Amino acid sequence: MGKMDHWSWIDGGIAAPQGYKATGVMAGIKYENKYDLAIIASKIPAQAAGVFTRNRVKAHPLLLTQKHLQNGQAQAIVVNSGNANACVGEAGDEAALMMAQRTAQALGLSTNDILVASTGVIGAVMPLERIVQGIERAAGELKMTSYGEKAAHKAALAIMTTDTVIKERACELHCQGGKIRLGAMAKGSGMIHPNMGTMLGFLTTDADVSAPELKRLLQQAVEESFNMVTVDGDTSTNDMVLFMANGASGITPAGEDWLHFEEMVRAMCIELAKEIARDGEGAGKFIEVQVSGAKTLEDARKIAKSICGSSLVKTAIFGEDANWGRILCAAGYSGADFNPDKADIYLGDILVAQGGQAIFFSEEEAKKVLEEKDIFIKVVLHDGEALATAWGCDLTHEYVDINGSYRT
Amino acid sequence: MGKMDHWSWIDGGIAAPQGYKATGVMAGIKYENKYDLAIIASKIPAQAAGVFTRNRVKAHPLLLTQKHLQNGQAQAIVVNSGNANACVGEAGDEAALMMAQRTAQALGLSTNDILVASTGVIGAVMPLERIVQGIERAAGELKMTSYGEKAAHKAALAIMTTDTVIKERACELHCQGGKIRLGAMAKGSGMIHPNMGTMLGFLTTDADVSAPELKRLLQQAVEESFNMVTVDGDTSTNDMVLFMANGASGITPAGEDWLHFEEMVRAMCIELAKEIARDGEGAGKFIEVQVSGAKTLEDARKIAKSICGSSLVKTAIFGEDANWGRILCAAGYSGADFNPDKADIYLGDILVAQGGQAIFFSEEEAKKVLEEKDIFIKVVLHDGEALATAWGCDLTHEYVDINGSYRT
Repeated sequence: MGKMDHWSWIDGGIAAPQGYKATGVMAGIKYENKYDLAIIASKIPAQAAGVFTRNRVKAHPLLLTQKHLQNGQAQAIVVNSGNANACVGEAGDEAALMMAQRTAQALGLSTNDILVASTGVIGAVMPLERIVQGIERAAGELKMTSYGEKAAHKAALAIMTTDTVIKERACELHCQGGKIRLGAMAKGSGMIHPNMGTMLGFLTTDADVSAPELKRLLQQAVEESFNMVTVDGDTSTNDMVLFMANGASGITPAGEDWLHFEEMVRAMCIELAKEIARDGEGAGKFIEVQVSGAKTLEDARKIAKSICGSSLVKTAIFGEDANWGRILCAAGYSGADFNPDKADIYLGDILVAQGGQAIFFSEEEAKKVLEEKDIFIKVVLHDGEALATAWGCDLTHEYVDINGSYRT
Repeated sequence: MGKMDHWSWIDGGIAAPQGYKATGVMAGIKYENKYDLAIIASKIPAQAAGVFTRNRVKAHPLLLTQKHLQNGQAQAIVVNSGNANACVGEAGDEAALMMAQRTAQALGLSTNDILVASTGVIGAVMPLERIVQGIERAAGELKMTSYGEKAAHKAALAIMTTDTVIKERACELHCQGGKIRLGAMAKGSGMIHPNMGTMLGFLTTDADVSAPELKRLLQQAVEESFNMVTVDGDTSTNDMVLFMANGASGITPAGEDWLHFEEMVRAMCIELAKEIARDGEGAGKFIEVQVSGAKTLEDARKIAKSICGSSLVKTAIFGEDANWGRILCAAGYSGADFNPDKADIYLGDILVAQGGQAIFFSEEEAKKVLEEKDIFIKVVLHDGEALATAWGCDLTHEYVDINGSYRT
């Protein structure tokens, strides 16, 4: 069953599904001439779900969005870059609420149906006047925008911070009775200025899916996509992924169609996750770590993430060094249950360690694999059936430069 | 009760207590003209204890040493740098055993009383001939050495890999009935070549202490010293700390004296731990993070280590940026239970965030604090009574260079 039989990538992004509009404006929140405020709106109330950072320190808009999602319904998302609206006390709660209120007013919606997300510097008070003006300009633009127009591209630009590549995607599934679409945009954990690091993801669909189903689907997909990306192990205070389903297609995917829809959502999240890893702070190389033959899924995930997040593995990849000892070592301290004496390690297709031990391999061939821009590490544990994949990037001088620079 | 009333630092290192000898030789294990093999020996069998890496991947000598410690007795330690003797299968077990056997033969001791430690490249077969020759030369030198001579300095040199500073210390406690001494040497987790990263610590005392007491004492001390050092979060396959007590002073510390002895052991381990942090790979600055007012000791330790290990905090310190948001963020994802809305954060003596929120502080004064070589971060949680301190270093270009270089 090739996935292409059922669904395919199409042009467009967050507003590709029926009944969505999105745009971005330059509100001057931190920089001039940078898109930094976006609104995504559905023409009818949508079922909605979110997953959020596990950091105990949570940004103000995140708390408001969780509250507004309690009834499983939303109609618009307002999101800004340039300021995280985190750790500023009551002023932060008020700023998040005001963003929801002004967006609701400008679009003629209920405040409770507005979700708010922010990314940027922690501990800086929001420039409310500029944000309110931005919201009004964005809402004005949205009113002039026909459904299906390309303004959504500006929304994807507006959530970028140090991302060097815009991240937006759309796909389409042929079901019984017609087509349903999925649109998405995301920003990665690249940072030019400290604390700009946040992973944000937004998904829309015109399928008719209930909020609890949507939440279950999103949680599952996030577990094996966004949660498997490691850039530097620092979990942001602002991370969130939101999913809206407005039913505008008139189609409720069921049976086989539901399975394909699940598959499409998962593929979308994995695609965005890989783009985020590839575009990590100062990244020179993309790293994919696949762990198979683990006892449990949790073990496989722990090991894959531990390898992907190891500073020593990341610097070895930067240095194009076939240093499998560091890979096994990172597996060993992952906390997962496995037998190191059975582990095989591959760099690309080259077996570099077998049964947890050194074997002969051609350093020259290994060097060739490591000179590539995309590095694939495979660990086969021979301990069970579980499999997981994690994505990350190398650790470079640029990472140190980017993150050593001043907040101001 | 000032600790100086009871005990004090003295000259010397691992062989400062009565009845110990130590030396190091150049065995040519990986480099010429580098001390790389050391023997520490007691003139009588000593009570002995060890703590070991929690990495599931364990080096071959570590497994042998654990076995030889089962009876709580040891008389000598043989240790090499330049090769970790890890992940090489049966050949590795045989190499570790041969090191113990040859040391026992050369010194006229029982093989079961020899402990073995190694540090260096993972996955490379040990150059046994050179090691055996080294053991014989070192044992020969030991026989010619009087107790109390300075040859111990060469032992401390022999365990260094990329350490830029020799780490050896001794101290002396005045007890009822006389003096007892404590000697120690350690190597840090600096690395010039990949997988050279291992923390090794060795302690000797002439006090009369039973192996179970010694083990309890060592475990406690390690928890709040070596285990609170973070250089890059990568736990080695070879880490170990060994402690021998030969009773040569004839003194069994008891009552108040035992408390002072405990204090002295703890102070020794903390001193070595700080030296390791200060000498971390590519370190430009030393970082001390003190967390107080935590609900539990475990929470305090988790938070202190999470802050100390955060790549974003480490790069901010490198960049001399008063980026308290990253500090709070790292506390937030530590897994510890605390209320971020009550947390105060200090850089040196400057309060930079209060109650989890931004407050005004002089960037100029903060800059002055951050220009220092030693950086003190203080987090006060107002959540309880527990306190912990962690040590680390900044993340620099040199770290990337050192760890990106080739194994060969």
